[in-house]
Amino acid sequence: MDDLEKTVRVELGDRSYDILIGPGLIARAGAEIAGRLKGRRMAVITDEHVGARYLDALTASLAAEGISVFPLTLPAGERTKSFDPLIRCCDHVLEAKIERNDAVIALGGGVIGDLTGFAAGIVRRGTRFIQIPTSLLAQVDSSVGGKTGINSRHGKNLIGVFHQPDLVLADTDVLDTLPPREFRAGYAEVAKYGLIDKPDFFEWLEKSWRDVFAAGGPARIRAIAASCQAKADVVAQDEREAGLRALLNLGHTFGHALEAATGYDSARLVHGEGVSIGMVLAHQFSARMNLASPDLARRVEAHLRAVGLPVSMDEIPGGLPSAETLLEAIAQDKKVKGGKLTFILTRGLGQSFVADDVPPSEVLSFLREKLGG
Amino acid sequence: MDDLEKTVRVELGDRSYDILIGPGLIARAGAEIAGRLKGRRMAVITDEHVGARYLDALTASLAAEGISVFPLTLPAGERTKSFDPLIRCCDHVLEAKIERNDAVIALGGGVIGDLTGFAAGIVRRGTRFIQIPTSLLAQVDSSVGGKTGINSRHGKNLIGVFHQPDLVLADTDVLDTLPPREFRAGYAEVAKYGLIDKPDFFEWLEKSWRDVFAAGGPARIRAIAASCQAKADVVAQDEREAGLRALLNLGHTFGHALEAATGYDSARLVHGEGVSIGMVLAHQFSARMNLASPDLARRVEAHLRAVGLPVSMDEIPGGLPSAETLLEAIAQDKKVKGGKLTFILTRGLGQSFVADDVPPSEVLSFLREKLGG
Repeated sequence: MDDLEKTVRVELGDRSYDILIGPGLIARAGAEIAGRLKGRRMAVITDEHVGARYLDALTASLAAEGISVFPLTLPAGERTKSFDPLIRCCDHVLEAKIERNDAVIALGGGVIGDLTGFAAGIVRRGTRFIQIPTSLLAQVDSSVGGKTGINSRHGKNLIGVFHQPDLVLADTDVLDTLPPREFRAGYAEVAKYGLIDKPDFFEWLEKSWRDVFAAGGPARIRAIAASCQAKADVVAQDEREAGLRALLNLGHTFGHALEAATGYDSARLVHGEGVSIGMVLAHQFSARMNLASPDLARRVEAHLRAVGLPVSMDEIPGGLPSAETLLEAIAQDKKVKGGKLTFILTRGLGQSFVADDVPPSEVLSFLREKLGG
Repeated sequence: MDDLEKTVRVELGDRSYDILIGPGLIARAGAEIAGRLKGRRMAVITDEHVGARYLDALTASLAAEGISVFPLTLPAGERTKSFDPLIRCCDHVLEAKIERNDAVIALGGGVIGDLTGFAAGIVRRGTRFIQIPTSLLAQVDSSVGGKTGINSRHGKNLIGVFHQPDLVLADTDVLDTLPPREFRAGYAEVAKYGLIDKPDFFEWLEKSWRDVFAAGGPARIRAIAASCQAKADVVAQDEREAGLRALLNLGHTFGHALEAATGYDSARLVHGEGVSIGMVLAHQFSARMNLASPDLARRVEAHLRAVGLPVSMDEIPGGLPSAETLLEAIAQDKKVKGGKLTFILTRGLGQSFVADDVPPSEVLSFLREKLGG
């Protein structure tokens, strides 16, 4: 344990848990887990990329504490978030005879975390679950809040449960080997927490983002901890997404529509890039609705561009559908209430709010301008 | 609404719900549902036997309130509690575009209720769920408590979630057409509630069981309502089965072992019959351990025999495995703590308790006597 490590407590009553953030946590996973859980049988679910890098180290760390490890390695990629791999996970956990005090460990990015958490949530109607997120996006987003699930042919994340982990180990060393594009995409969610309701954090990011992007060092850990804390604060108030939690969708309504419009083709657009463009659009649209100043939109755009993220729709390679088609995707994604759309808009830096009365005609004109310009 | 109808409220905070018990509830389902839920799209999941009898009446009742019905009919039988039908249910609910204020309705016995509740629990991480249980067992057992799930090749009910219904409509008319053996099997669970902690109810059943078995009439409704209320009281105190809820397993530890020993062959033994024999064994074993009098065991045995339920292992056709094999099945079913077994035993009529320190050697001698005698 050193000064570089931070702990974020997610307060959810008897489902509260700690997120440990810092270097070397995979190597120390056995000790951290053995100190908290009585069980000595752990199923570890990973994918072939992450497993090749970290499974041996994790297994050794657990074995050193007398923990038996039952690994399952699945193909990497979004397709693994589906029923067949889910059934494999459930069977694996049952075969490993994981019982009440044991746990299921997810070692990987968002796909492995969402899938493994879902399996842990339904085996014996809820099995202990530990997350070791290995992407920046997974560390700052899916490690907080307990959303788990798989995709359906009807859409993404449509089948799942809320299942809180017992412990999250966010080893920041693993971020040093992430492809730069993937790190940037995760950073979009980091910036998002500032834009939702933490203006000081956003200002700090504007000054310090180079340190956050640099391998190792305390700035990166501080950024991740602040992000987890920001999300934890929201989730503690609204675990099941009745209201407030919708703020976490800042940039996601436009972003999801762009992801759908590009056929979820990661060569063209990954989730964080869609969120980056979506956050800029949300700020521009807020300006258009006279809610916030156009300067704020320009400021957000400038920061996201500085870190290397795309900030406008014309940066997406391959051409986009019409404004009408995008609006349709938005209306499908978010429920339409009495003909009005729900968006996360803003009244200033870090002053986001849920606007559930946005006229579709305004969105359409806005998108036409943006696509035409 | 008439004097014949009773309502049991299951108190679970913001997950509280009503169980309506009485005749004609399928015909009145549309009005009851439309009065409580705003949504006007309902997916109805049933099996081919129940669907053939009641789906048209239910659909007409819902349609009369302007509710669109999206039915899915699955094969009848325990095999339907598995992943493939679960995936069909999820797809069906998504195709029907069931949204936040709509609901998924289970029309059937325990299999359909458990499967449909599981699907409702995972589509969009939780969709509204209405149960219309059509067997006595489903009305008095699975309609209370929110346990949902499917079987795995590793055992029964190993995959699932807790998902409370929004409303339960227990139409007692449907019981009039149940095969007598199935009605009796459900009655074993009715008697169980008396034996757990309602001695007055058990005494009333001893006097009034003929009225409960007679088609129609208030005694049957009273028995079902008392059973639902008894289970609701336990579940309200222990929703996620941390302790007290284990009392509901009275008769089930021996019963499950007998079900496993007969290969879940319903021609030989159905669940309620296993519970009947199991409750007698639990009372006999309590007497053997000097916890309760042998007279009580004889009294319980006499009542269950009077209604036509099997009360001893030698009534099971086809021969049973050895005492050792049964003990192994018991040890697998219930977790062994430090070499001791957990059973629900009793100190008197309606004075059941969780005994977590039962020596396996005592159980073995007891089973040897019973199988030998």
